[in-house]
Amino acid sequence: MNAIKTINISPEEMTASFTKILLSFDFSTEDAKQCAEIFTQNSLDGVYSHGVNRFPRFVDYLKKGLVLPKNKPSLKNKIGQIEQWEGALAPGPLNAVFATDRALELAKESGIGCVALSNTNHWMRGGYYGWHAAKKGHLFIGWTNTTAIMPAWGAANAKLGNNPLVIAVPYHNEAIVLDMSMSQFSYGAMELAELKNEKLAVTGGYDKDGNLTNDPSSILQSMRTLPIGFWKGSALSFILDVLATILSDGLAVHQVAKKEEEISCSQVFITIDPKKLAGSDNQNKIIDEMVKDLKSSVPMDDHPSIRYPGEKAVQNRKVNREKGIPVLASVWEEILKLNP
Amino acid sequence: MNAIKTINISPEEMTASFTKILLSFDFSTEDAKQCAEIFTQNSLDGVYSHGVNRFPRFVDYLKKGLVLPKNKPSLKNKIGQIEQWEGALAPGPLNAVFATDRALELAKESGIGCVALSNTNHWMRGGYYGWHAAKKGHLFIGWTNTTAIMPAWGAANAKLGNNPLVIAVPYHNEAIVLDMSMSQFSYGAMELAELKNEKLAVTGGYDKDGNLTNDPSSILQSMRTLPIGFWKGSALSFILDVLATILSDGLAVHQVAKKEEEISCSQVFITIDPKKLAGSDNQNKIIDEMVKDLKSSVPMDDHPSIRYPGEKAVQNRKVNREKGIPVLASVWEEILKLNP
Repeated sequence: MNAIKTINISPEEMTASFTKILLSFDFSTEDAKQCAEIFTQNSLDGVYSHGVNRFPRFVDYLKKGLVLPKNKPSLKNKIGQIEQWEGALAPGPLNAVFATDRALELAKESGIGCVALSNTNHWMRGGYYGWHAAKKGHLFIGWTNTTAIMPAWGAANAKLGNNPLVIAVPYHNEAIVLDMSMSQFSYGAMELAELKNEKLAVTGGYDKDGNLTNDPSSILQSMRTLPIGFWKGSALSFILDVLATILSDGLAVHQVAKKEEEISCSQVFITIDPKKLAGSDNQNKIIDEMVKDLKSSVPMDDHPSIRYPGEKAVQNRKVNREKGIPVLASVWEEILKLNP
Repeated sequence: MNAIKTINISPEEMTASFTKILLSFDFSTEDAKQCAEIFTQNSLDGVYSHGVNRFPRFVDYLKKGLVLPKNKPSLKNKIGQIEQWEGALAPGPLNAVFATDRALELAKESGIGCVALSNTNHWMRGGYYGWHAAKKGHLFIGWTNTTAIMPAWGAANAKLGNNPLVIAVPYHNEAIVLDMSMSQFSYGAMELAELKNEKLAVTGGYDKDGNLTNDPSSILQSMRTLPIGFWKGSALSFILDVLATILSDGLAVHQVAKKEEEISCSQVFITIDPKKLAGSDNQNKIIDEMVKDLKSSVPMDDHPSIRYPGEKAVQNRKVNREKGIPVLASVWEEILKLNP
């Protein structure tokens, strides 16, 4: 189908294109490059929805003055190993890397560090910050709130955020990384399934009559997406929002939802330095055993392999480095038009 | 149905009965009382499966020497605000309260504290420790690993733990508390549905032919329970196990699963003191607003009310204090027979 025709772009070309476009706004050279690299890395890892596909919308937010590239986060409050930062609506990915690095510094001092960030912008792919911390040898637990996109369990209208939760653990030269939003399917995933004329793999929401369905078009119409685990993901989404709001002294989902666009989010970054833990010499070995045990599962007929969290990202990265990053031709065309 | 006939027991009578039975083992008076109170509180809050219903099994573990009531946890390692403790197979609830209190002490010093506990026993209801920390004014994030009870996504045999995750936030004189295991339904819930000849509210697992089903008997037969959110809960369960194992230097799920019974678990307790945070004066007010917004949801036809996490526990506690704790007659009979 023409609508899903892809072309392959090398990571170098992608980063260069993104950097050039960002430099036409008020970014410093260094910031433009870092921001471009994050969008490229997310695409390399196969998370196109929060990489290359999202870049035009990021630029749109820059144009509208919703993302302020000259701004920097500032420290609001420090209590021991916790720091609260004001994000000043600076670019979300730059703020989030900064906050992760601050948490890493705090954890170096005393094992664990927590940074909470208010009034920041969409961090794109949360997994990036998990990988970032894990590659520096730390455990990571982080999450963000978002605008309201999902009804609570039992409700018909959207009150909950997608509130992605990220957990990462260093593993040899790579990492185990969970990057999990609270809805069973993202709007992007449902739109893609609709475009491909495919059903969702499992039930993803309700149709307009309140019946559970795996038809993406029906769910996109009703806007009634389903939380993971029904009542469970609904509760997890809510309490992650409470924590992010309180820790950052920032806005809650229902307040973000009142904004014209999704800005001014609240985020949390917790890192733990595992190097001095009892058993630290044994960490890779025990994870090896855990992965081996997981992969020794008896697969169900229609499942080719059992993967650990983050494994697919490593595979995508390898393939995309070799062959170039697959980009929807229509998306790349749109990006080229953004060139100054 | 006779099998589900209940009687009402006052919390005082329940605690006294439990205490008396525990004192026939090697518990100190204080420990027996505390342990009894935890089982009673869990029942008062409506979590009968990990309260009164579980007590006979706890006693069975005492009889078998799997839970060692004279043992106490000992400090293995301290790195700044992180402590690693050896649980010595002491009673799980006592170890878990101890670990929560240690984390609270660490958080008083520097905002955040983390305690990891190896070689401990089943903590019963994880939510208890969330309530415990929240009632002392702290935020709480904790989890445990368990034995293998659930297939990974795409697998037919159980390799993952239920690995309950608990998050708690103080809220006026009560708390917002999430207590969420990684399977959509516990074996206890499915057994109860089978007993009542009811279907599960949503899909809960696979039948022996690999078809998704909400028939509890079919799932109990196949042992193929479903993780919350399919691939998502599967990944979350795995990485929580990795974190618990590394942080505690304890056993992973696949190692616990090799034991004859479910013992020697690994647990994590993170607490944060919110009292000096920027915005601390505003915490109850903002949660009030969040709860109000949640409850302003348009309910779906068959859902009477939208609840926040932990709300049901407060309601159950009130009703059960007034009317007594409803206990299956057969369970109470079994407990009375345990009297020395």
